[in-house]
Amino acid sequence: MKPDEWERLLLGVTESVWGNIAHLALKGEGGKPVGVGASGDRTLRADKAAEDELMEALLRVKGTRVLSEEAGLRGDPDGGTLVVVDPLDGSSNFARGIPFYCTSVAVVEGDSIDRITVGVVRDLVNGDVYHAVKGRGAMKNGARVKASRVKEVSRAVLGIDMSRGGAEFVERLAPLIGRAKRQVHFGANALELCYVADGTTDAFVDLRGSIRITDIAAAYLIAAEAGVEFTDAGGRKLRAVFDLEHRLSFVASSNGVLHKEILRLCGPAGLGRA
Amino acid sequence: MKPDEWERLLLGVTESVWGNIAHLALKGEGGKPVGVGASGDRTLRADKAAEDELMEALLRVKGTRVLSEEAGLRGDPDGGTLVVVDPLDGSSNFARGIPFYCTSVAVVEGDSIDRITVGVVRDLVNGDVYHAVKGRGAMKNGARVKASRVKEVSRAVLGIDMSRGGAEFVERLAPLIGRAKRQVHFGANALELCYVADGTTDAFVDLRGSIRITDIAAAYLIAAEAGVEFTDAGGRKLRAVFDLEHRLSFVASSNGVLHKEILRLCGPAGLGRA
Repeated sequence: MKPDEWERLLLGVTESVWGNIAHLALKGEGGKPVGVGASGDRTLRADKAAEDELMEALLRVKGTRVLSEEAGLRGDPDGGTLVVVDPLDGSSNFARGIPFYCTSVAVVEGDSIDRITVGVVRDLVNGDVYHAVKGRGAMKNGARVKASRVKEVSRAVLGIDMSRGGAEFVERLAPLIGRAKRQVHFGANALELCYVADGTTDAFVDLRGSIRITDIAAAYLIAAEAGVEFTDAGGRKLRAVFDLEHRLSFVASSNGVLHKEILRLCGPAGLGRA
Repeated sequence: MKPDEWERLLLGVTESVWGNIAHLALKGEGGKPVGVGASGDRTLRADKAAEDELMEALLRVKGTRVLSEEAGLRGDPDGGTLVVVDPLDGSSNFARGIPFYCTSVAVVEGDSIDRITVGVVRDLVNGDVYHAVKGRGAMKNGARVKASRVKEVSRAVLGIDMSRGGAEFVERLAPLIGRAKRQVHFGANALELCYVADGTTDAFVDLRGSIRITDIAAAYLIAAEAGVEFTDAGGRKLRAVFDLEHRLSFVASSNGVLHKEILRLCGPAGLGRA
């Protein structure tokens, strides 16, 4: 299928997921655990509902494999196109009633992060949609967006995920956090990366080494198309393996100048974790 | 005026503020700086609009003084009732397009934090309103709410504000952050305290020593009425001076067991800053 067709399909199906998840949230029913997913994480009813809907729509496309956090790898084993899905990023937010979670779908025509051709991240609270087709720029609700021009950490709003990092890990990030204008963390990394893409925040840093490619594939393309610098903690190009076992650390900054300062300040945190 | 009358007035006027701020946000006009407020902070058009509306409604009540971040102290100098206002908490979020900001109004019949009789915090993104009348419990959108029963930091979602704290300050908080299930920070402290009140999160910690009583007076009553433990970093009862000069540090936890562990883990950060 062509990128345009994928774009239309993904915009449509994620809109439908938004409607269904909003319905579950209203009824207060989506937060119930229903099992454990292929990734080993707990699956909520809302995770399952979002995944079922995405799977049904995506597996109808011939020659397609789908990799998802809950269901694992499905579809045509010889399929040339891989679709990478995180049905509900921010499940814990959903379960606790924090209004910040999203769904994330990316199309990959190959096995490297450069071969992500379409990415869609939809905010499942208000329906906002961030998306990109490779080479055509990043969009929010159909309008072109760009990363911010903030060039100093002391003027930057930084998203940093430190969940379950341990005291020593947090200590290593102290020079970065302590210098930032503001440290924020909302709890759904794909959507927080889209905030960097459209200039809402200035960077997002996750050096815990626990993120999966399913979590960030779509947001990676959207951010890259918006001009965001995206590397591992050592400043190297991000390398991805498209399965649920490999884990990543990354720094995403709105521009190269800010990126350099962030890498310098959190350098030691990254060594050994990159 | 009686607490019931204040309750009605504040619920009504904050609803109207919500409508007007939503309108400014839609037009993309509220983020323009228009001066510097009485507190020394930059005033945005949205701050000014929210404050003007609140001031007009509150100063109509006879025998009332109003203390607000932008305008300072206004109204009847001999007025026995003090109304404490933060027109737009989370101004920076508003300016950057992060959908998390609120308005906060508290009525005080005396000069201590125990004499706060009515508190209203309204989410200016979705209109949700948290409020309390002293002795009658805490409400969200008119329904009674309570703090969570999570008793261990390792299972807790902790809100922590570290903005501009410096590296050493962050290092001292590392044992707490590193142990938490999740650290979050959304950027509007009054609303984040209401999240503790209704069990959305489990605690909120701000030991920077930079919060004003105007920022948290309403949320303090709402949290206290929901069963939240609220002390300074040394575990002492919070003392407040109702002006714009005094600054506070505080720890607010959903219950006493969790509170004790948090104080123990962040103890050194609080010494000298409480």
